[in-house]
Amino acid sequence: MGIRTKLRRNRTQKKGMPPGSLVYIGEEKTEEVTVSAIEFDDQDINEYNNISLDKLKSVIDSYKITWVNVNGVHNVQIVDEISKMIGLHPLTTEDILNTEHRPKIDFFEDHLLAIVKMLDLSATDTELDIEQVSFIMMEKTVITFQEKHGDLFDPVRLQLQESKGRIRKAGSDFLFYSLLDVIFDQYLIIMDEMDDRIADLEGMIMKEPDNHSLQDINEYKNTILQLKKTVWPVREVVNKLINRKVPYIKEDISFYLQDIHDHIVQANDMVETSRGQLYGLLDVYYSSLSMKMNEIMKVLTIVSTIFIPLTFIAGIYGMNFAYMPELDWPWSYPAVWIVMIIITAIMLVYFKRKNWF
Amino acid sequence: MGIRTKLRRNRTQKKGMPPGSLVYIGEEKTEEVTVSAIEFDDQDINEYNNISLDKLKSVIDSYKITWVNVNGVHNVQIVDEISKMIGLHPLTTEDILNTEHRPKIDFFEDHLLAIVKMLDLSATDTELDIEQVSFIMMEKTVITFQEKHGDLFDPVRLQLQESKGRIRKAGSDFLFYSLLDVIFDQYLIIMDEMDDRIADLEGMIMKEPDNHSLQDINEYKNTILQLKKTVWPVREVVNKLINRKVPYIKEDISFYLQDIHDHIVQANDMVETSRGQLYGLLDVYYSSLSMKMNEIMKVLTIVSTIFIPLTFIAGIYGMNFAYMPELDWPWSYPAVWIVMIIITAIMLVYFKRKNWF
Amino acid sequence: MGIRTKLRRNRTQKKGMPPGSLVYIGEEKTEEVTVSAIEFDDQDINEYNNISLDKLKSVIDSYKITWVNVNGVHNVQIVDEISKMIGLHPLTTEDILNTEHRPKIDFFEDHLLAIVKMLDLSATDTELDIEQVSFIMMEKTVITFQEKHGDLFDPVRLQLQESKGRIRKAGSDFLFYSLLDVIFDQYLIIMDEMDDRIADLEGMIMKEPDNHSLQDINEYKNTILQLKKTVWPVREVVNKLINRKVPYIKEDISFYLQDIHDHIVQANDMVETSRGQLYGLLDVYYSSLSMKMNEIMKVLTIVSTIFIPLTFIAGIYGMNFAYMPELDWPWSYPAVWIVMIIITAIMLVYFKRKNWF
Amino acid sequence: MGIRTKLRRNRTQKKGMPPGSLVYIGEEKTEEVTVSAIEFDDQDINEYNNISLDKLKSVIDSYKITWVNVNGVHNVQIVDEISKMIGLHPLTTEDILNTEHRPKIDFFEDHLLAIVKMLDLSATDTELDIEQVSFIMMEKTVITFQEKHGDLFDPVRLQLQESKGRIRKAGSDFLFYSLLDVIFDQYLIIMDEMDDRIADLEGMIMKEPDNHSLQDINEYKNTILQLKKTVWPVREVVNKLINRKVPYIKEDISFYLQDIHDHIVQANDMVETSRGQLYGLLDVYYSSLSMKMNEIMKVLTIVSTIFIPLTFIAGIYGMNFAYMPELDWPWSYPAVWIVMIIITAIMLVYFKRKNWF
Amino acid sequence: MGIRTKLRRNRTQKKGMPPGSLVYIGEEKTEEVTVSAIEFDDQDINEYNNISLDKLKSVIDSYKITWVNVNGVHNVQIVDEISKMIGLHPLTTEDILNTEHRPKIDFFEDHLLAIVKMLDLSATDTELDIEQVSFIMMEKTVITFQEKHGDLFDPVRLQLQESKGRIRKAGSDFLFYSLLDVIFDQYLIIMDEMDDRIADLEGMIMKEPDNHSLQDINEYKNTILQLKKTVWPVREVVNKLINRKVPYIKEDISFYLQDIHDHIVQANDMVETSRGQLYGLLDVYYSSLSMKMNEIMKVLTIVSTIFIPLTFIAGIYGMNFAYMPELDWPWSYPAVWIVMIIITAIMLVYFKRKNWF
Repeated sequence: MGIRTKLRRNRTQKKGMPPGSLVYIGEEKTEEVTVSAIEFDDQDINEYNNISLDKLKSVIDSYKITWVNVNGVHNVQIVDEISKMIGLHPLTTEDILNTEHRPKIDFFEDHLLAIVKMLDLSATDTELDIEQVSFIMMEKTVITFQEKHGDLFDPVRLQLQESKGRIRKAGSDFLFYSLLDVIFDQYLIIMDEMDDRIADLEGMIMKEPDNHSLQDINEYKNTILQLKKTVWPVREVVNKLINRKVPYIKEDISFYLQDIHDHIVQANDMVETSRGQLYGLLDVYYSSLSMKMNEIMKVLTIVSTIFIPLTFIAGIYGMNFAYMPELDWPWSYPAVWIVMIIITAIMLVYFKRKNWF
Repeated sequence: MGIRTKLRRNRTQKKGMPPGSLVYIGEEKTEEVTVSAIEFDDQDINEYNNISLDKLKSVIDSYKITWVNVNGVHNVQIVDEISKMIGLHPLTTEDILNTEHRPKIDFFEDHLLAIVKMLDLSATDTELDIEQVSFIMMEKTVITFQEKHGDLFDPVRLQLQESKGRIRKAGSDFLFYSLLDVIFDQYLIIMDEMDDRIADLEGMIMKEPDNHSLQDINEYKNTILQLKKTVWPVREVVNKLINRKVPYIKEDISFYLQDIHDHIVQANDMVETSRGQLYGLLDVYYSSLSMKMNEIMKVLTIVSTIFIPLTFIAGIYGMNFAYMPELDWPWSYPAVWIVMIIITAIMLVYFKRKNWF
Repeated sequence: MGIRTKLRRNRTQKKGMPPGSLVYIGEEKTEEVTVSAIEFDDQDINEYNNISLDKLKSVIDSYKITWVNVNGVHNVQIVDEISKMIGLHPLTTEDILNTEHRPKIDFFEDHLLAIVKMLDLSATDTELDIEQVSFIMMEKTVITFQEKHGDLFDPVRLQLQESKGRIRKAGSDFLFYSLLDVIFDQYLIIMDEMDDRIADLEGMIMKEPDNHSLQDINEYKNTILQLKKTVWPVREVVNKLINRKVPYIKEDISFYLQDIHDHIVQANDMVETSRGQLYGLLDVYYSSLSMKMNEIMKVLTIVSTIFIPLTFIAGIYGMNFAYMPELDWPWSYPAVWIVMIIITAIMLVYFKRKNWF
Repeated sequence: MGIRTKLRRNRTQKKGMPPGSLVYIGEEKTEEVTVSAIEFDDQDINEYNNISLDKLKSVIDSYKITWVNVNGVHNVQIVDEISKMIGLHPLTTEDILNTEHRPKIDFFEDHLLAIVKMLDLSATDTELDIEQVSFIMMEKTVITFQEKHGDLFDPVRLQLQESKGRIRKAGSDFLFYSLLDVIFDQYLIIMDEMDDRIADLEGMIMKEPDNHSLQDINEYKNTILQLKKTVWPVREVVNKLINRKVPYIKEDISFYLQDIHDHIVQANDMVETSRGQLYGLLDVYYSSLSMKMNEIMKVLTIVSTIFIPLTFIAGIYGMNFAYMPELDWPWSYPAVWIVMIIITAIMLVYFKRKNWF
Repeated sequence: MGIRTKLRRNRTQKKGMPPGSLVYIGEEKTEEVTVSAIEFDDQDINEYNNISLDKLKSVIDSYKITWVNVNGVHNVQIVDEISKMIGLHPLTTEDILNTEHRPKIDFFEDHLLAIVKMLDLSATDTELDIEQVSFIMMEKTVITFQEKHGDLFDPVRLQLQESKGRIRKAGSDFLFYSLLDVIFDQYLIIMDEMDDRIADLEGMIMKEPDNHSLQDINEYKNTILQLKKTVWPVREVVNKLINRKVPYIKEDISFYLQDIHDHIVQANDMVETSRGQLYGLLDVYYSSLSMKMNEIMKVLTIVSTIFIPLTFIAGIYGMNFAYMPELDWPWSYPAVWIVMIIITAIMLVYFKRKNWF
């Protein structure tokens, strides 16, 4: 049940704690939380894997653009320490720890918090893998909190290393945009994949509908619903990004943001289209069930309608009345056969005319 | 019938009374109405259970932050006296007494009235227990009117006693926020629970649909509808709280209120998701009914289609014609059996091909 | 057909008349139109039944608050004379005469016109009795035009007579509010009643669905639709009343109007809930039909599947072949019976397993 | 197919012409286009039928109020010449010639163009007769372009001739309003008629549903859809008329326009109601089909279930075994009859209990 | 599968590239990309087919109005060079290369980018041919990027050559409008065609519904969905064009744009109408399936109900009891026949009454 997978974890535990109490809400995980950082300007680039928190502080404080990536947020302490290092409000930290948060953006005096979802579609089933990514963006630093180690950001890492595009020359805002861009491009790719799979499902239902088909349709509907819930609020996030004037975002990336906005709108359109197709599939499914029923009934009706009258005729001449003159005529038996064949022929013509076979 | 439980009580009685007439509208109750108060500042905390109204007045008038909790509002007189003590408008008192009021918030010069619903889900059925809580919030006092004695506020009581978080240091506005917070956190927990139950129901319908299943689906739909009606207007309440500037709410809890707002939006999303799943369940149910019909028809058709022609053949040779040469041939009888077996085999292959069994 | 009852009367007749031509649109009625008036201040109260129009003029012109009630508007002449007496625009008079008008409010320099619907639910069927009430409210006078004599306003009359509440001390605006209040309170009572009836209908459909059930559902849907059309526009009417500043409405009843507004919103919610329940009922109904079909088919299939093979066996040994060795064996007949019983037993076990009985 | 009737005519022909090229779009017609004019002030009234274009110019230029009515717009040349005479923009003329235009209103410096639809309901089928009327309204002149000769405006003509109401004393704006009024009053009359017919259809479907019923429902749905498309945009047209200040409309007809607005809103409501009823009809129809199926199945099941076991018993004693002791007992035959009668009785009681007949 | 045709091409390839990287997204094509230009003023007109990029630059820079048409955008290099020649932002070039872009308009200081879709309907199936056209409009130049060579713009070319209408005298804005006009006029023509085809489909389903019918309905639904997605955002594009003031669009074409706006709104209406009709078709289809089932069941029931009792009677007198007095009566056999005929007659009357044949 895709929809339920990520719910209900530690929420009950949190109930009754004072607001701002830091509790991780999400799937229980045990893998180690790792922190890496990349520090760059248009000349140099330094990468630090598994950086210590002390070192991290000095990297953030340097004059270069820094991208800090936290893999895993289930270690409350690490997240809390980083939050304090950069001066976040406890409720902001709480939002980062709650991996079931709705996509949103909050603007503060010297930083912003953006929460979006990274999507992946399992290769074998309709399960949608939804991972939350929280961004803290400041004048010279972007911090990304991921739920687990992933490779979606690798292209950006590569661009930084190879100094491709304007990314090394631009500020933290362009880095932020580039990271959002890879996440949202992924949405369109997943919608394409969903589209393919729904078409496959349609083919299967056309051929042979079973109760499992309906289950599949419902699972796809759930996946589409999740996609909608993930993609829809992102529009607002991007809108706010475009319209809000904050000192740490320079004017000239708004054109890039507009581009992201176009993609999100397109992803939304695709979600709606897929939803429409799934409802069409339901019709196909029900119609197939009905068709099958009609076919079954036709077989029964044809066989019954032909043989029941014939059996009646046979029954007539099986009666034991003393005075049944036909019984003694020599041509009665073949005559009965001929009558039966004629009746059968008439029936077959009738059914043929009705297009029953 | 969940939806009807709380309706219709004393409304007819009230019809025709002058506006502002105080009548309790809600389930009839006989348990005693109790009033308790907690008075605190960052140094001291005093609790008064079953406080008398005279004493209550002096506690409210003290310079400390006071939280008065009224368990039960069916005693019109007590509610009326407290209302007069703090100077409420008769219509406000009327709203407090009407336990079927829509969630709302009204701002007055020196206090506000907030009406929200406390939810609980019965462990054994889909019945939703909806209890109204009215808040009067003033400069130094929060008064909560509950329908009956409950323990949802216990965590706040505990935080006050143990001086956890900023609650003892902050004003009545933070207390108010903390109380709202426990109520709205409960919404998400209940939505999680509903989600679980719907998944269980889906499993049951898949296995064996009966007319009771549909009744269950409809009851869940009613519960979801009630949830929607309870959760949806709360958004507006919180929005107004955030945007309205009143002297007795300090600026710096608006960030906390925004947090509540996010949770309410999420709860709304979950309600919509559950609703979608219930409609999916309806499809599963109808499809199961259809499937079952098809299966019944298949059994009938297979048996009829095989035996009706065979019976016809038997009928033929049961006829009593004087001249039926086959009757006297020695191999006729085994030949008829062989013909019948061949016919049956052909039928079975045909049905097998059609995937009928 | 509830919806059509009030339509189509004299509309065709009116077609082609100059705008402002006074024609009564509504059910044809013959009962006499009566005019009564109550004149009061906080000291005195005078009631006039069947007041003449001359006397009416002097009462309206007096310095006291006056409530004029016109029972019946099908007498165009009387309505016209009263309209002219207080100086209404011809189109306003036209609106009062058209008893099929949508609820609305129009503000003029020294008076307002409010048109709302008074509801009543027939005790024996789903027919909704919708009666239009038009209010003219002026500085010192409220005039109500009802379609026929009714007793809904009796409580207000009683309050006036017994000087209960603030009604005798307040102005025409509070009288106006009090009259609206009894009308709108009635909406909630009717919604409660509808809710009850729909629950009863659900019970009946669960037990024994017939074509009449569907008719009932559709009639309830029509009634709900009418309720929606009656209740929904009233929201706007009350909103305008709250927000529009006119000299003949004093500020301090806006709080009372807000209360009415809350009730209207609640009535709307209840309408939506009932509508949802009716759609649920449709599902119950269709499912019951399907269930019944399945049950019928099961009976047919069980009987056929058991007896058709048995009849075939009997047919075999009814054949008249000369060489059928079994016929002469002494134990054949009991053996055939045993075979038949075994087949029947197997069938029964099979059906039992499939839960068919 | 109501919806398609008016589409597709000369549109393809027009494709590729420069914008502003004048082409008539609509049903092909051959009847002659006639132009008539009425010139009046509060003293005199002159009517000109089949007025020549030269004379028309002098009439329009006179100081009196003039109403020019063009019957038929398929003669491009005549429309073009009149347009040029009063100085219309080529695109305005194009709009007048396109009889499939959406209702709209355009304001120009010294005139306005209003396009609305005149409706008529065929007496024999659900076909809706939609005719476009374009109004050009200027300081002293109203020009109406109708698709064909009609009598809907006759009442206005009569009012002018008989000097009824304020029409002769008022300006071109009141004439314009009067003409709109007769068109929109017609909408309500047609909705009433639709309502009647749908009720009739419901009665017929209740009694005897056939495939034709569904076709009827769909045709009504199409008609309702067309009504919606015709009535809905008119709201905006009237709204603009009310809110836009132009020198050739005097303030004091805005109250009349408000009246039209109320009627349009009511017509819209009626359209929605009818639509709801049609969906209810679909349910009635499907339910009737299901009911019928159940009834057929019941007949089959009752007959089969009673006679198949009896035939089996008869078959048993038709077997030819040498040793069947019952065959020789004297009371066997009547005993078998008694058994059969008992079985039949039990079955009948069973079916009776199940309410199958 | 119409909807999937254009998706998924090079998107995956693009994933991870820096923003602004130029990649063609769309169907793979190999035909040569050709560039043509028309340069004109009210005196002269020069056409250049397969113009070289050098020459193109000089043409664009000339003082005349120039229309450059690029057939095919899959050659990234050519598009890139032209983009650089006129100074486009890399993201704009990226949009032009992405042939799956949503319709949109972007305004820049000295040019605008408009992306719309050109539609064509395949003559043989429901496949909608959607081709993207990107417009760059500058002070004196309009550049159109088409996906492939098409003839939709031929009428405009002809008007230019023959100097018809105001096109040769007006600026690049009127040229731009004229090009948009032919694209959007096509929308209405296609909607007309769709309307026709849906009516044909309805006829076919009425006559003989099969599983293919449902597939057809679903394909039409997909086509309509695509139309909606293509037409709907164009409204916004045109709205922005009308409302945005940019120096390179002169005021006086806003009236023409309003005309386009009206057409787009009408096209949207037609899309909605067609959608409604398709849902009606689904009802027709399901009803036809049900009807057919009823008909099959009727045949089975009539035949079974008549012959099963008769066969039972024959079975009775086929029994071999020693004492069956009827067997020896001389009139028994004809009496049985008479009884059978009477039973059959009663049955037939019964079925006739029930309208079963």
